[in-house]
Order: sequence, then structure tokens, then C-alpha cells
Amino acid sequence: MLTLRKRTYDILEIKFQRKRGLSFIVNIALSVLIFLNTVAIILNTVPSIGNQFRRFFLDFELFSVSIFSIEYILRVWSSVEKAEYRHPFWGRIKFIFSPWGIIDFLAIFPFYFSFFRTDLGFVKILRLLRIFRLFRVSRYFHALRVIQNVLRDKKEELLLSVSFIIFLLLISSSLAFYIEQEAQPEAFSSIPASLWWGVNAMTTVGYGDMHPITPLGKVLGGLMAILGVSIFALPTGILASGFAEQIRGKRRSNEKVHCPICEHDFYLAESHKHK
Amino acid sequence: MLTLRKRTYDILEIKFQRKRGLSFIVNIALSVLIFLNTVAIILNTVPSIGNQFRRFFLDFELFSVSIFSIEYILRVWSSVEKAEYRHPFWGRIKFIFSPWGIIDFLAIFPFYFSFFRTDLGFVKILRLLRIFRLFRVSRYFHALRVIQNVLRDKKEELLLSVSFIIFLLLISSSLAFYIEQEAQPEAFSSIPASLWWGVNAMTTVGYGDMHPITPLGKVLGGLMAILGVSIFALPTGILASGFAEQIRGKRRSNEKVHCPICEHDFYLAESHKHK
Amino acid sequence: MLTLRKRTYDILEIKFQRKRGLSFIVNIALSVLIFLNTVAIILNTVPSIGNQFRRFFLDFELFSVSIFSIEYILRVWSSVEKAEYRHPFWGRIKFIFSPWGIIDFLAIFPFYFSFFRTDLGFVKILRLLRIFRLFRVSRYFHALRVIQNVLRDKKEELLLSVSFIIFLLLISSSLAFYIEQEAQPEAFSSIPASLWWGVNAMTTVGYGDMHPITPLGKVLGGLMAILGVSIFALPTGILASGFAEQIRGKRRSNEKVHCPICEHDFYLAESHKHK
Amino acid sequence: MLTLRKRTYDILEIKFQRKRGLSFIVNIALSVLIFLNTVAIILNTVPSIGNQFRRFFLDFELFSVSIFSIEYILRVWSSVEKAEYRHPFWGRIKFIFSPWGIIDFLAIFPFYFSFFRTDLGFVKILRLLRIFRLFRVSRYFHALRVIQNVLRDKKEELLLSVSFIIFLLLISSSLAFYIEQEAQPEAFSSIPASLWWGVNAMTTVGYGDMHPITPLGKVLGGLMAILGVSIFALPTGILASGFAEQIRGKRRSNEKVHCPICEHDFYLAESHKHK
Repeated sequence: MLTLRKRTYDILEIKFQRKRGLSFIVNIALSVLIFLNTVAIILNTVPSIGNQFRRFFLDFELFSVSIFSIEYILRVWSSVEKAEYRHPFWGRIKFIFSPWGIIDFLAIFPFYFSFFRTDLGFVKILRLLRIFRLFRVSRYFHALRVIQNVLRDKKEELLLSVSFIIFLLLISSSLAFYIEQEAQPEAFSSIPASLWWGVNAMTTVGYGDMHPITPLGKVLGGLMAILGVSIFALPTGILASGFAEQIRGKRRSNEKVHCPICEHDFYLAESHKHK
Repeated sequence: MLTLRKRTYDILEIKFQRKRGLSFIVNIALSVLIFLNTVAIILNTVPSIGNQFRRFFLDFELFSVSIFSIEYILRVWSSVEKAEYRHPFWGRIKFIFSPWGIIDFLAIFPFYFSFFRTDLGFVKILRLLRIFRLFRVSRYFHALRVIQNVLRDKKEELLLSVSFIIFLLLISSSLAFYIEQEAQPEAFSSIPASLWWGVNAMTTVGYGDMHPITPLGKVLGGLMAILGVSIFALPTGILASGFAEQIRGKRRSNEKVHCPICEHDFYLAESHKHK
Repeated sequence: MLTLRKRTYDILEIKFQRKRGLSFIVNIALSVLIFLNTVAIILNTVPSIGNQFRRFFLDFELFSVSIFSIEYILRVWSSVEKAEYRHPFWGRIKFIFSPWGIIDFLAIFPFYFSFFRTDLGFVKILRLLRIFRLFRVSRYFHALRVIQNVLRDKKEELLLSVSFIIFLLLISSSLAFYIEQEAQPEAFSSIPASLWWGVNAMTTVGYGDMHPITPLGKVLGGLMAILGVSIFALPTGILASGFAEQIRGKRRSNEKVHCPICEHDFYLAESHKHK
Repeated sequence: MLTLRKRTYDILEIKFQRKRGLSFIVNIALSVLIFLNTVAIILNTVPSIGNQFRRFFLDFELFSVSIFSIEYILRVWSSVEKAEYRHPFWGRIKFIFSPWGIIDFLAIFPFYFSFFRTDLGFVKILRLLRIFRLFRVSRYFHALRVIQNVLRDKKEELLLSVSFIIFLLLISSSLAFYIEQEAQPEAFSSIPASLWWGVNAMTTVGYGDMHPITPLGKVLGGLMAILGVSIFALPTGILASGFAEQIRGKRRSNEKVHCPICEHDFYLAESHKHK
């Protein structure tokens, strides 16, 4: 026996299920609306398009925000159906301040806020965050879980690699500042200015707006480029081993057998399992 | 007993076989012609060469398209020899609309079409697609199959990585637009214009035609470069584990043994197999 | 029974322990001071900030160097508590000339040196080396050890990859010099000048201040870019296998079982261990 | 009983041995001479240095080429000591045309050739090829063998990846030519000219001397950058799995045990081997 609230919750909640019922249609429709909103926000900034279809974009914004507002209210109302947010009042508050609740709120808030202040083009960008919801559609897919597991397992090593990169960046940008300062006082005016060069040298972006011109600065720049490329090999290596580990872990679980003689478990040959 | 149609099919079909018969010669000749065509199309666009050898390039094009047309007709005619396209009429239609049938058609179609309309340099490029046929020569080689298997096995993870990249690209390019718009209204004129900067910053191409100049924009640009390099480590890691998996899978198949006591299968030592 | 020296040593020494005592507080305070010093040195180079807060930065430097000096003296005094530096005189000398001892000395030395000579902005950078100490806080964490092990295990292969890169760099930069010299005598003025282009082409930085303009030079530049990207795949591959090896090594240790029949050890199924 | 020829051969041949005898000294001396030659060739191209030390560089060149010539003659003379080149005449011819023989010849030939023609700065670069000999010193080291094995094992996959890259490069550069030709007739003047942009876009070098300016061209350029970075992940993944395979292969060889019951071989636990 499903109450209206339970039914609302079931429809709005994204589930990966075979039966393509109302919940499936509603979620696809919301995803399409999010996608169209993204396209509208992007195209609206192109002067030639934005001016010509001004009326249309305003109407579409009104429509989208109305739908998103209704969805947000229903989601807050029905959130108590989830065990996590069971409490009638505090559960809903908890949902509102959960990451998904905040993203959903940020998507509608700038619209209502714009009644008070006129120019708020910037906050429209918050609606783009809803694209992140599109990933939720596949939340239950195998792939996302694998990537999440790898990132979680390797969090420490990845953070350490990033720390190495930042450390190297600070040292070499400071060095570059002292080396190049005299030859290019305008470009390398301070360490923060030098950091802009440093990050683009180490990640090999190399815009060309800043580059060392002194021999010593060029030696430093060359070493930095080689070191940069090599250090960015660290996260790649870490992720590669992380993915390999995931696969091996998955493969071996439930594939062990008990030896009646030595009383220990062994790995089973893979093909056996599928027989 | 081979009919003419069956024999035509056997000659045109690419097979990896020891016996270097007529089929081998025909396929090598066609591959060489495809290669020369590619070279001719490329050189033809160089004004100094294109003008001087205009006559030669036209003759060569006429010759190539004639050969490709004969090959195409023979291929359609003999395609019914393949179990997949057995039906005399629908089988051939199916072949014509198969990827290889379309590529073969696109290679000859622009030539005939140019009798009606004069300037069609652009569609000549379609003939370049035939280079793809050169890969077929090695279709049965081990290497291509390994790469195909890896890409198929990891399709989901790879698509998800690409989605992450696009998502990050959209968010950061939109942010860059709102941050840089005021300082450089011409360069960062709209989000689509900003996306051009974004994609070149994240893939570390960095042409230098557009780059942030405000402090906040530079912080964003730096973060984006680091994030970009790191996120592109994801597909590398996925592919690395995919290749490792392929090798392991290949290695272990048929190498299991049955234990007469515990009634289970185990992996065999590798060197044992080659004894 | 702890002497004052032993207690000083225990407080200054970084240990990863549950009990958050005085040692924890002192080390956190020193880390914060190192971090603030880094920020101060960076901001001090920004003219607008550096001039306005000149007094504040001078006071902060005096304060930091005082603390670092006290720490350095206490560290030298108490270093003999460590087995490695046991000898009252030579142990301390050994500590002073150990890498950590030198880094700590370089952080305070420029300040005292500046009493004799006035302008020494450059040597201030030596204080930045103390950031390296921040890594020590996590010296006992698993992640740093894994990365260290991988780098140590793969030292030979990584050095060889770097040698390949340098070799390719020398050959192709010299070639580029002889090819481009005539067309751009100013840009490609010598092989060292050409190396600056070479290293930025091979690491794909590509500032755009130098690039080949002759057809032959462009062919070389193109080949070099492809080879460069491919060769930098070597260290990534080496690191990836290194990390995978670490994990496998860790996983299997202590997981072997003895077979009472064949008298040999086998790997245990992973899940068994956690039972 | 060692003949003079055998002794000469033993001294010149690079061997990895504990005993640091005459052979070791001679090889180190030759390596140092090769290294100094490289430095001299590079510095000689710097006008300010080249002119000032002209006399010194000429003398050093004379000296180096003399030593290299003596070494070359001795090497040809003693080459017959190696089983491979046993035949008194054809063995030596075979050695002269072996890769190492050719490199050694190319290092001295330009000097003698310059007596007939004056300006031959370009061929001096051939002497740089001798740097490659420095790798031989470590020929017997484990690391070089591992890298060689990986490259040999993965040759097919790596070649196929390079083919994919070239195919993508041709198609997208041709497309870019037809798209950008009208807007930038000078930059994108022909497909070969467009290829220069293509290779620098795909390898993410991005000098900035050429880049698409039409909206369609920018979409193509963006896709190409993303595809380029992703495709270059293939060789990295292949190499990573190759290195992992090498390690596993090495680890498992000779580590199998025979089971007296099922009469099969199994892998031994690693730690057992080292007991």
C-alpha cells in the first residue's frame, strides 16, 4: 500500500531498473530539461543569438525554473521516505543541506533572487551544476563505481602526488622569479606572477605569454618541463595500478576453494566458475 | 568446385594466410593504390605541385576511381557469398549499407557527382576514408584484436571519463567567461568562445591566442591545467589495466588443471604448458 | 626516566602516534609557521603588498627566524639521542651535515648573513626549502612509503628513460640547428639555443617563441613531438607497473600456506586471511 | 694463452664485470671522450665561445678523431675474435656494416672528408651519434633489457597505435584544410601545411603560429585535442601492461613446484624462494 508521498519519492528517486515505468519517464524528462538548460545558458551568452531570441530564452528560463522548483519542493517533502532522512523536520533539514539538496537549491535560487537585484548573469552559472545530476542516472552502473572505488582507494597517493607537484611548483616559480626578474621586470614581477608561468610550464600548456629569456632561466624552464611531465606520470601510474587492483579483486572474490588436505583456501581457475 | 562469383569473393576478401596467391597480390595492389591516392590528394593541394602536375593528377584520379568502381561492383556482386549477406537482393542491400560498403561507396561517389557540379574539392576528402581499409589488412593480426577487446571491455569506464572531462570543461569555461568577460570582452565574448580556451587549456595545447589575464582567471586557469592533466590520467589508467587484463586472460585460459582430491581446477605454472 | 634532552628530542621528533601530546602541538605549530613563512615570502614579492606591509613582513621574518633558530639549536643539542648520532661531538657534526640538518640551517642562515651585506632577497628563497619538512609529517604514512618504494625499485629503468630522452633531445636539437640555422639565424643561433626549442617541443610545452619554419624542420618538429609524447609514456608505464608490483607484494606477504604433501608454500586466497 | 688480437678485443669490448682492469679504464676513457666531444660540438656552435676558443676546438677535434680512428681500426682488426665475425675477410666486412660499425665510422668519416670540401659543419653532427655508445656501457644492466623486452613484446600493438595516430592526423588535417582554407588562405595553404598544425594540435604542443579561427574549425580542433590526448594514452597503457608482464614473468619463472598427487606444476609463494 503506497501513500502519495512514498509514490512521489519512488518516482523522483533515480533507480536502475528493468521496468521502464513513470519514474523512468520523469527522470529522462528531467535529464533532457537539464541538458536543454545547459545548452540555453551557453547559447544565451552569444550576443547574436542572445539578442535575437531574448524572449524565447526568458520564457524557457521561467518554464525550467518552475519545473525545477516543483521538483525541489516535492523532493524535500518526500525525502523523509528515505531511512537517512526519516525525522519529519530534521530529516528534511538534513536533506536540504546534503550535497544534492544544495545543488538543487542553487539551480533555482538565483532566479528568485533576481527579482530584487537586476544584473545577475553570473549566478545563472549555478544552474550548470545540475549537469552533475546527469551522472546520477548512471550512479548504479558498474563503471562509475569502479572509478569511485579507485579514487577512494588511492586517495592518499593521489593527494601526495598533488602535494609534490605544488611543492615543485612553488620552489621553481620562486627560483624563476629571482632569475628572470632583472631581464623581464614586467612579466616576472612577483612570485604569484611567476607561478602563472610555472603552472603552465609544468602542465605543458605553455601559452607563450610568459617564458624565460635568460640562459639560466631557460635551463630551469627545461628541467621543469621534463620534471613536470615525469611527475604527472605518478598519478597515471597510481590510477593504472588502482584499476588493475579493482579488476583483480572483483575477479577473485568467491572463487576460492577449500583443500581437504592442507585445510586452506586457494584461488580457482577462472574458467571453472563460468562452467 | 568454385564458381566465378565464389572465386571473385575469395580474391577480394582479405584473409591472413600463408599461401601468397592471387588474393594476396590483388589486395597488396589495392592497398598500394589507396596509399598512392592518399599521397596524390595531399600533394594536389600544394599550389606549386598541384598546378604543375594538374594533368597527371587528373589522369591518376580517373584511373584510381575506375579501379575502385570495378572493385566496388565486384564486391557488391560477390558479397552474397558471405553467409551474412546470403540473400540475392537484401543481402547486397545490407552489404551496401554496411560500414565497409559505405566507405567504399564514398570513395567513388564524389567523382561521378562532380560531372554535375563543378567545384567539389571538399568531397575528395571522402576518398581518404579508404585509408581505413589499410587497417583491414591486419584485421586478423593479434594486435588489433587486443586493442579492440580492450576498448570494448572498457567502453563504459572510458565514456564516463570523457563525460567527466566534458562536465569539467563546461563548468570551468562558463566560470572563465564570467571572470574574464570584463577584462577581455573581445576574446571571452561568449561561453562557446570561452570553451575554445577551455578545451585547449585542459588538453594543455595552449595556442596562446586566448588566456586569462585577471588574477582570478589565472587561478582558475592554473587549477584547470592541473585538473586536466590529472583527469586525462584516468583513460590512461583504464587502458593500462585493460591491456593487463587481456594478457592475463589470454595467459590463463586452457592452463588449468583438475585436482583429483579436492575436485577443483587450479592455474598451471606457465612454463609447464610449453614443455 | 626522561632527561630534559631526551624529552626535547621526543617533542621535536616527528612521530605518527595516536596520543596527541605536546610533540603533536609543537610539530603542528612549526608546520603552520613554515606554511605562513612560505605565504609571506610569496606575498612579499608583490610590490603593492610588499610595500604596504613592509613593517609587518620584517617583524614576521624576525619572529620566524628566532623560532627556527631556537628549534635548530635544540635539534642539534638533542640529536645525540638518536642512535645514529650518538657520539657527543661527531654525532652532532654528522647531524648538521645530514640533508635535514642542512635544510634547517639554510632556512636561518640568510637572515644572519644579511647583517653584513644588504641586498639578499635571493637567498630568502632558501627558507622555502623548509616546505619540504611538511612532507615529513606524513613520513610514516603508507602513501609516501609506497611512492618511495616504487621510485627506489624502478630507479634504473627511470634513469634509463631519462637518458633516452636526453639523447633524443641532443640529436634532434642539433639537427634542428643545422636545418633552421639559415632560415632563422637569430632564433636557431646555436645548438644550446636550439635545445631550448627542443626541450619545449618534446615535452609539448610549445611556447611559440621558437618553432621551425622550413619544410624539413617542420617534419623533424612533428616527428619529435610524436616521439616525445611516446617516450614520456615509458616512465608512466614503468611507474604503473611499479605501483602494481607494490600492491601485489604487499598483498601476498604472510599469505602463503605450507602443503603437507609436496612440502611447498602456496598463496592463500585473500578472503581467507580476513576470516 | 691470449694473443695480442684477443687481448685488444677483450679490452675494447664492453663487459659488465666486477674486476676493474684495463678494459674498464679504456672504456671509461672512451666514454668520457665521447661525452666531451658532445659538449665541444654543442659549445662550438655558440658564436661567442666558438670564435674565442677556435684554436682549442680544432685541436680537440684533431685529437678526438685520432683516438676514434685508432679505436675504429683496432676494432675492425680484432672483430674476428667474436664468433659472429669469425671469417678473416667477410667477418670484418660484416662488422663494418653492422649498426655499431657504421656509427663508429660515421664519427670519424666527416673529418677526413673535410680535407676535400671546406664547409661541412652539418656532418659533424654524425659524431653525436656516438653518444649512443654510452648506452652500451650499461648493455648488460637489467633495466635496458627490461625496456628492450617490453618494446619487442609490444611491437605490434605500439605500431598499430602509431598507425591510428597517423590515420587520425591525415583525416583531421585534411578536414581542417578544407574548413580553414577560405578564412586563412595563407596559414592553411595546403594539406601538408595543415599537417603541421595537426601534429602540433594532436600532440598538444600548440606553438600558436597556426590555429583554426572559424567556429567549425575550432570544434574540429577541440575534438582533435581531446582525441589526441586519449589516443596517446594507448601506447602508455600498452607499455604499462608490458612492464607489468615482464615483472610477473620474471617472478614466476623457476618458481613452480611439482605436485606428487595430481602430477602438475604450481606457482610457488615468492617468499619461499628467498628462504
